[in-house]
Amino acid sequence: MKTTTTKVVGTEAADAPLREFTIERRTVLPDDVQIEILYCGICHSDLHAARNDWGGTTYPIVPGHEIVGRVVEVGENVAKFKAGDLVGVGCIVDSCRQCHYCHEGEEQYCENGWTVVFNAADHKHGGITYGGFSEKIVVDADYVVRVPETLDLPSAAPILCAGITVYSPLKHWQAGPGKNVGIIGIGGLGHMAIKIAKAMGAYVTVFTTTAAKAADAERLGADKIVLSTAAEEMKNCAKQDMILDTVSAKHDVNSYISLLKTDGSLVLVGLPAEQLEIGAFSMVNGRKSFSGSNIGGIAETQEVLDFCATHNITADIELIQVNQINEAFERLEKNDVKYRFVVDMQGLKQC
Amino acid sequence: MKTTTTKVVGTEAADAPLREFTIERRTVLPDDVQIEILYCGICHSDLHAARNDWGGTTYPIVPGHEIVGRVVEVGENVAKFKAGDLVGVGCIVDSCRQCHYCHEGEEQYCENGWTVVFNAADHKHGGITYGGFSEKIVVDADYVVRVPETLDLPSAAPILCAGITVYSPLKHWQAGPGKNVGIIGIGGLGHMAIKIAKAMGAYVTVFTTTAAKAADAERLGADKIVLSTAAEEMKNCAKQDMILDTVSAKHDVNSYISLLKTDGSLVLVGLPAEQLEIGAFSMVNGRKSFSGSNIGGIAETQEVLDFCATHNITADIELIQVNQINEAFERLEKNDVKYRFVVDMQGLKQC
Repeated sequence: MKTTTTKVVGTEAADAPLREFTIERRTVLPDDVQIEILYCGICHSDLHAARNDWGGTTYPIVPGHEIVGRVVEVGENVAKFKAGDLVGVGCIVDSCRQCHYCHEGEEQYCENGWTVVFNAADHKHGGITYGGFSEKIVVDADYVVRVPETLDLPSAAPILCAGITVYSPLKHWQAGPGKNVGIIGIGGLGHMAIKIAKAMGAYVTVFTTTAAKAADAERLGADKIVLSTAAEEMKNCAKQDMILDTVSAKHDVNSYISLLKTDGSLVLVGLPAEQLEIGAFSMVNGRKSFSGSNIGGIAETQEVLDFCATHNITADIELIQVNQINEAFERLEKNDVKYRFVVDMQGLKQC
Repeated sequence: MKTTTTKVVGTEAADAPLREFTIERRTVLPDDVQIEILYCGICHSDLHAARNDWGGTTYPIVPGHEIVGRVVEVGENVAKFKAGDLVGVGCIVDSCRQCHYCHEGEEQYCENGWTVVFNAADHKHGGITYGGFSEKIVVDADYVVRVPETLDLPSAAPILCAGITVYSPLKHWQAGPGKNVGIIGIGGLGHMAIKIAKAMGAYVTVFTTTAAKAADAERLGADKIVLSTAAEEMKNCAKQDMILDTVSAKHDVNSYISLLKTDGSLVLVGLPAEQLEIGAFSMVNGRKSFSGSNIGGIAETQEVLDFCATHNITADIELIQVNQINEAFERLEKNDVKYRFVVDMQGLKQC
């Protein structure tokens, strides 16, 4: 396969800092789109993967899965995009296209396994995928979405992962007018969840352990803020139809389950490494559910981008340069970011 | 309030054996039905309550909540029943009748709290409710169901709790043709779940830790039996749309959650006293749910009785006499019953 040399930022070992180097990407095939990357968000998964926290990392790794850029070249079969189009790429760059879930536009649950944008075996083209910390990327057009021109580009990038990850469950569990929707945690995912749930028309209650975040939660759109460490506040909290749990560390979920209405769901989008403990009585007595949800499909990623354009929603970000990625990783590890780092990848060309 | 003296079997202390004594029940009020009790099933909850395992027991307690009997008297407002009718009473003998759930026929989730047939404060009539280990009972007609005459009476009694407890979630989570439904545990609830899920048209897989129960599971209607301690059998098991978990002890649910399809649910109807540990990855990657379900409403209890009559389903029981209740409690504690004890309450009259 013909390849082209591409500048990237990645790492060759779990304990090595990220640095610039080059990799080979395929040249544009008939179904492909080549994208010049403008901005790429930093998600905690990038950090976990780079440091091999979950095991299975293949080095070198090039993280980055919240990609916004412009099309520079399209393959001969591609009618949907043309050079100059503003586009995005998220977590998914391929799937089987054959199974029930792919047919339903839920490629994130592909029965034969979908291909992650970075550090995944590319079963179709060979080799390993490299992510968005890169000057360019080549992706099958079916896995590329259109970014509305009205969105602020750097702060739109996190919609490709943080945004879709909260939009998909909010929609699936029918957040909307007349519904009480709780959000646990105000971070990369949580702050987007507040904005999106509010725009969907729900009454949004934000649960936080940090009193200092209350003002911010209100600014983001929360109707009500509950300090989850204050027993009286929790006791007096209105019952929730759905609570979206964005916390990635081990935490007590029973106190939130007790706040659900009958048939209510606590939906986990964080990925705590340790198991969570759940008591049976509250679950049984209210036919409650503890559920999980994973990103969203391609069609739904387009939908959330359009939804965000309609409602003028983007992430609250700190825009950084390529040479600040290591520092950003360190700060991310301490949750020291409001609320998402986004890298200006245009700097990479000049390196 | 006028009362009438009634013979019962109950206990006056957590560590005392059950014995016969008398209590006072209200005489028939305009909305009431008085029932001569023929048979009453024994559920593990009776044992827990008698021994104060969950706390909150008021003594004396008269257990029993799987009641089948004949109407002997009706109040002047009661048009639905007449003397001689074959009827049943389950867990619920009153509820607020005002809330959303009462209106929807889901009295088991009554927002203002429903009244349990035994050992509950009777907010309407005063005093404490006394259950089905009794020669007679007086119940508001709205909480009495009709028992089809074609059912074998002693073995129909467990439908009033074990039957409805498994029927309600099987229906709610849409067990039926084309669905893979798993059942964990072959006990009072589990053996009814196998029969009912099979009659609903599902492909029924039974999970058991006891190889010796395999033949019985097959006889009860299982299409497939999986020994849950055999890693290879679990690995090769087809993915399930829903798994009904009838186990009341602490157990590992993650191995079952991994057998769910995307959007599948593990539904708990047992009540383990200890918390259950759940890993996030499998939940998130398949948008799976861990849920609970509690008995069923009055209309649905009528529905399961009619369903069982249509499909000729009753419980597998050991019919015992009143003087064998203590022995039955002891055997129940060791899970030594296939699969439900039912007491012939007619013997109490002659005592």
